[in-house]
Amino acid sequence: MGLSFLAMPLVEPDAKTGPPLEALIQEMGRRAREAALQLATLSTQEKNRVLESMAGALLEREDAILEANAGDVQQAIGKGLNPALIERLRLDPARVAAMAGGIRQVAALPDFVGEILAEWTRPNGLQIRKVRVPIGVIAIIYESRPNVTSDAASLCFKSGNATILRGGSEAFGSNAAIAEALASGGAAAGLPEFAIQFVPVASRETVTLLAHMDRYLDLIIPRGGKSLIETVTAQARMPVIKHYDGICHVYVDSAADLSMACALAVNAKCQKPGVCNAMETLLVHRDIAAAFCPLVAETLRKHGVELRGDDTFRCFDPGAHAATEEDWSTEYLDLVLSVRVVDSLEDAIGHINRYGSRHSDAIVTSDAKAAQRFLAEVDSAAVFWNASTRFNDGEEFGFGAEIGISTDKLHARGPMALPELTSYKYHILGSGQMK
Amino acid sequence: MGLSFLAMPLVEPDAKTGPPLEALIQEMGRRAREAALQLATLSTQEKNRVLESMAGALLEREDAILEANAGDVQQAIGKGLNPALIERLRLDPARVAAMAGGIRQVAALPDFVGEILAEWTRPNGLQIRKVRVPIGVIAIIYESRPNVTSDAASLCFKSGNATILRGGSEAFGSNAAIAEALASGGAAAGLPEFAIQFVPVASRETVTLLAHMDRYLDLIIPRGGKSLIETVTAQARMPVIKHYDGICHVYVDSAADLSMACALAVNAKCQKPGVCNAMETLLVHRDIAAAFCPLVAETLRKHGVELRGDDTFRCFDPGAHAATEEDWSTEYLDLVLSVRVVDSLEDAIGHINRYGSRHSDAIVTSDAKAAQRFLAEVDSAAVFWNASTRFNDGEEFGFGAEIGISTDKLHARGPMALPELTSYKYHILGSGQMK
Repeated sequence: MGLSFLAMPLVEPDAKTGPPLEALIQEMGRRAREAALQLATLSTQEKNRVLESMAGALLEREDAILEANAGDVQQAIGKGLNPALIERLRLDPARVAAMAGGIRQVAALPDFVGEILAEWTRPNGLQIRKVRVPIGVIAIIYESRPNVTSDAASLCFKSGNATILRGGSEAFGSNAAIAEALASGGAAAGLPEFAIQFVPVASRETVTLLAHMDRYLDLIIPRGGKSLIETVTAQARMPVIKHYDGICHVYVDSAADLSMACALAVNAKCQKPGVCNAMETLLVHRDIAAAFCPLVAETLRKHGVELRGDDTFRCFDPGAHAATEEDWSTEYLDLVLSVRVVDSLEDAIGHINRYGSRHSDAIVTSDAKAAQRFLAEVDSAAVFWNASTRFNDGEEFGFGAEIGISTDKLHARGPMALPELTSYKYHILGSGQMK
Repeated sequence: MGLSFLAMPLVEPDAKTGPPLEALIQEMGRRAREAALQLATLSTQEKNRVLESMAGALLEREDAILEANAGDVQQAIGKGLNPALIERLRLDPARVAAMAGGIRQVAALPDFVGEILAEWTRPNGLQIRKVRVPIGVIAIIYESRPNVTSDAASLCFKSGNATILRGGSEAFGSNAAIAEALASGGAAAGLPEFAIQFVPVASRETVTLLAHMDRYLDLIIPRGGKSLIETVTAQARMPVIKHYDGICHVYVDSAADLSMACALAVNAKCQKPGVCNAMETLLVHRDIAAAFCPLVAETLRKHGVELRGDDTFRCFDPGAHAATEEDWSTEYLDLVLSVRVVDSLEDAIGHINRYGSRHSDAIVTSDAKAAQRFLAEVDSAAVFWNASTRFNDGEEFGFGAEIGISTDKLHARGPMALPELTSYKYHILGSGQMK
């Protein structure tokens, strides 16, 4: 059985009679480390069989999952949670089918474990091979979306890692039901015991206990809002890969095709405003401001966008609100856009490097030299020339499913897919060489 | 001028009259971030010119450096520091020349920044390029060896990163003098201002302030003992790459060539016992124990090695001390060795994965199948077949100078050289594509 929580009490521990929480988390860590050693040597075929069986089990248990989810939703409504949060929490048959489909997509992706990344022979005859291996044990700490349970578990498993899942309290019943389905499905097809574990207690203390457990955890990935990420980052003693805000920019250069620029601005802002790769600030070169600002303002407003401009922009669009200093570093995640008119390419790059979040930024221009400078000097994970920031995405890059878009610069930057869930080791083959 | 500390007071700040330490560190961070943006676009030629000029300046200022070092050594003797520590601290003309030579070697290494790691075109026509870029701002927190000042600064600079150096208090004068030489030399050849900064205060608080400054620092590398690494790891809010202990093993399999095994054991233990890739535990398969144990015991003892064995080993070598449970997880860094007789390859792998530090472990065998299993299942940065663990080293791998040997699994594992001091970004080239 892959999920040890089934044998554990699904209750808040009682300080007097219950199991000490720290011992529980440590034991999960120890077991995960042992499972990781087994996972590292599974074949691709063995892993894909497990994934297929997990997907099937999710569909078979749809009723139980939806019932548990209805309980979570009921409780959330009772607590007065905001409708957007409840919407994220809610499952239906289509969403369960999408989870199962997601697992099957992961099965269809290539297995990178075992890949020889480099290979060379030294003058003394030593043969050195750099070989891709799993990271080891990964903890995923996430908030309300129950689909993260199956998405994260399947990606970590396919890349040979043991996973400890710690979901949010609002989705506790849904997560447990999904995990139970994955467990029974996985076990039937040979999932090593304790390869995927679900923290059976939703207290906040479990986050701290995981963050301190560098003895057993190789990596923590927090998936959720800024405050969750900051809490984990401040406490973690092991690497954390962060998927922070996207304060993304589109810069319309003096040499831009204005109708392309207008269309890209609308796409980057409106196609899905609540996601991290949506545009939050539009920068416009002064030389084309008189022609471009009224055009883009009218078009964006037709799409329901509220505009907050600097003084120059408001000369061309008096209907815009005045942008404050705070606006430049705000991720609205909504149909709101800040707009600034800049004097030069250099000023645009300076603005982005100062206020941006190193996520996704675009230049619209027909001037190749300006574009090259923008690509080189904007310090962001993905820099676009004449394309929408919305393309910073694992699927769009051709990577398949991703675990998130990293705003870190170490280990993984931008879309974090299967290869970014691996590490490497060196095999050195000799014939008695000594130093 | 590249090193801002020259303009700063080299004194402990006074809470009443001096500059607040936090503001000082924040200002260093802010300036480093600005410098990093300039560094990212320097050409290889420009960087090599700066390095050459730094090396020259070190040699020109040898007298001033040795004088400052004599002061540090005098103070260390006065404080009663242990002789090994004083030896690490001491500089002489040969060591200054070695530092300058090290910088020239870094100049001679290839520049990986700008390398295109992958490139592909999507069905919608988007061209995606994964391009190697510097990490950004790196803080190096180190202890007594003053050569780290020039080694770390030159490696970080060559890979396009801004560096904040925070050396130990015992070597404060030496580090300051070396930094001053690098500064004047670098500035003369175009080193961007604040690209290399030296923390002008040696108080412990500076470590905490750096560790909390995730706004400006992309990475911290602690170079020193376990307690320094643990202090940094517990406090850091940004990635830390750790170079921990090496509890390294040599396993002599039943199918080993015993004279090769004996020679490798001597090399791995005795060639330089005080380093992280030296062997600390020897594992011997039961089937060859009667033949191998007396042989290896006699040879090692001739080299002055103290042996601590389990019960079985002591049957063959009654002169050995009894190993305790603690011995299996001890890094002696000395002519002391623990020895255990194991029943199988599986037991050897189990012992290493339980007690080892994931650093460097070797199998001696003529059985290819046993070797393959060892290479696959031992979860260490470098796994050796018929070669000494001493080869886990950047120079020996052919990488040139290294900043350390990472015991982490994220971003860098094993020798951490120039490529491991870089990150990447994506350039996406389009013609108006929208999602």
